[in-house]
Amino acid sequence: MTAAVNDGAIAVIGSVAFDTLETPAGRADDELGGSAVHFAVAASFFTKVQLVAPIGDDFPAEALRYLESRGIDCSGLERRAGRTFRWHGRYHEDMNRRDTLHLDLGVFGGFQPRVTDAIRRAPFVFLGNIDPTLQGGVLDQFASPTLVGLDTMNHWIDEARAPLEALLPRVDLLVINDEEARQLSRETNVARAARRILGLGAKSVLVKRGEYGAILFSPGSVFAVPAFPLEEVFDPTGAGDTFAGGLLGHLAASGDLATPNVRRAIVYGSVLASFVVEDFGGRRMRTLERDAIEQRYRQFVALTEF
Amino acid sequence: MTAAVNDGAIAVIGSVAFDTLETPAGRADDELGGSAVHFAVAASFFTKVQLVAPIGDDFPAEALRYLESRGIDCSGLERRAGRTFRWHGRYHEDMNRRDTLHLDLGVFGGFQPRVTDAIRRAPFVFLGNIDPTLQGGVLDQFASPTLVGLDTMNHWIDEARAPLEALLPRVDLLVINDEEARQLSRETNVARAARRILGLGAKSVLVKRGEYGAILFSPGSVFAVPAFPLEEVFDPTGAGDTFAGGLLGHLAASGDLATPNVRRAIVYGSVLASFVVEDFGGRRMRTLERDAIEQRYRQFVALTEF
Repeated sequence: MTAAVNDGAIAVIGSVAFDTLETPAGRADDELGGSAVHFAVAASFFTKVQLVAPIGDDFPAEALRYLESRGIDCSGLERRAGRTFRWHGRYHEDMNRRDTLHLDLGVFGGFQPRVTDAIRRAPFVFLGNIDPTLQGGVLDQFASPTLVGLDTMNHWIDEARAPLEALLPRVDLLVINDEEARQLSRETNVARAARRILGLGAKSVLVKRGEYGAILFSPGSVFAVPAFPLEEVFDPTGAGDTFAGGLLGHLAASGDLATPNVRRAIVYGSVLASFVVEDFGGRRMRTLERDAIEQRYRQFVALTEF
Repeated sequence: MTAAVNDGAIAVIGSVAFDTLETPAGRADDELGGSAVHFAVAASFFTKVQLVAPIGDDFPAEALRYLESRGIDCSGLERRAGRTFRWHGRYHEDMNRRDTLHLDLGVFGGFQPRVTDAIRRAPFVFLGNIDPTLQGGVLDQFASPTLVGLDTMNHWIDEARAPLEALLPRVDLLVINDEEARQLSRETNVARAARRILGLGAKSVLVKRGEYGAILFSPGSVFAVPAFPLEEVFDPTGAGDTFAGGLLGHLAASGDLATPNVRRAIVYGSVLASFVVEDFGGRRMRTLERDAIEQRYRQFVALTEF
């Protein structure tokens, strides 16, 4: 990540979903969510975003209007016959743990993303958490992206390790949590895990640690940032994708991929994630203002400077 | 913590022990340890330390010579008939978890600390993790300390909550881990837990989070620092006391209790803790040089600056 970029657009491929969420703070039904939506909304505070995902014939006009109101290019949303992806989850008192009560792939089953000409020149590509074989097939369709980010999860590490490992040398920024880093590397220690993953070809690895923050490992440098210490966490859903969206959004908008700016981008990712957990699903994002983002960025400086 | 101090001496009350340690990295028998020793050795890199603890008639001259070679004032060690405190612990593969295989209080049973005139004027007092009633009795014997630090553990929060809570208004810096903070406050969220503990009268609370670092809550300010990402952790024994020793050691040596210096002190605490876990018990401290401390402090700057 050393070249500079000029165009701010990010293409994100992932899920668009309606989530029913139960947390110790309460319950919310059919909230607009999914990895691609959380990513895109966060990134839209900084730059132009193009969304590639399947939606069902039940996808409401209001949701589409909301995404477009954020400047998100929805031309890559493929409307298919059937229901939009749905997830119903319940978090434990310890919100690092959750159970899936119900999952309906809907139009996501059998989805084969096709990237249009308008999107395939995007300089930034984020491959949200879907089947690594699909992620690879999507990436093949891009012209020559400057930066490729990728998210994955335990399920794919278990069930699709070979296609996932084959993708890593094409990835500039792998975004995973510490459990996934351990599973992918087969190392318990997070620093050794990261070194092993860099050895598999990823140019850098951002390990998300929930309430403890995040740590970026690159060949020559390590950067750690704590999470913002919130007194109320309503719902952690989407925090990881929102983090990635804020991070890549700032990077794309600034066009500066040098280490100091990558670090600032990680702080912006942390800032956005600290907002999204303040309400259910992506509700908090609907009222968030750019000023509040800058104010919390300054609070991160105050939280960490010595 | 706003006044300045002129004299660098810290008095520490706690345990002197011989530990038998089993970790995934191996085993070590009868290592010199105990909360007061780990604290005192770490603080001795910065300032004069006075050690108050009971030792048995089996305490070897070599161990005493080592402590004195570090400039530690051992006149407060009370030699009593019987064996020195012994602990035998075994850590899990996840080194945040450990089991006590054997514990022999030895001369610690029935110990009533008496603070000599040479020690009772120490401006800094650290009350290591012992019975809160004993901690209070010790604190009563000090003239007018500038800064009082206190450590405790789940056992005392369960069994001696009333005397522990009675102590908190006399404590400038409470040093506990996140599980203890939750238990003491009866709050799950660490920020709310800290606010509740400040409400109980402690002037500030440092919450230690093991491999995730530490976070200081004071009425007007929060400071978070990650842990140094080590590839090899041999033995976490003593990391918390070493952290506290480095922290108070730097504060006492500098005589500056303003917020920016408290933050630097927390980083020094993190630095010392990152060294002690590199070998069994306190072995790494025996070869540690001040230059290496300063070098790792600069690595903490590089790890966190943005």
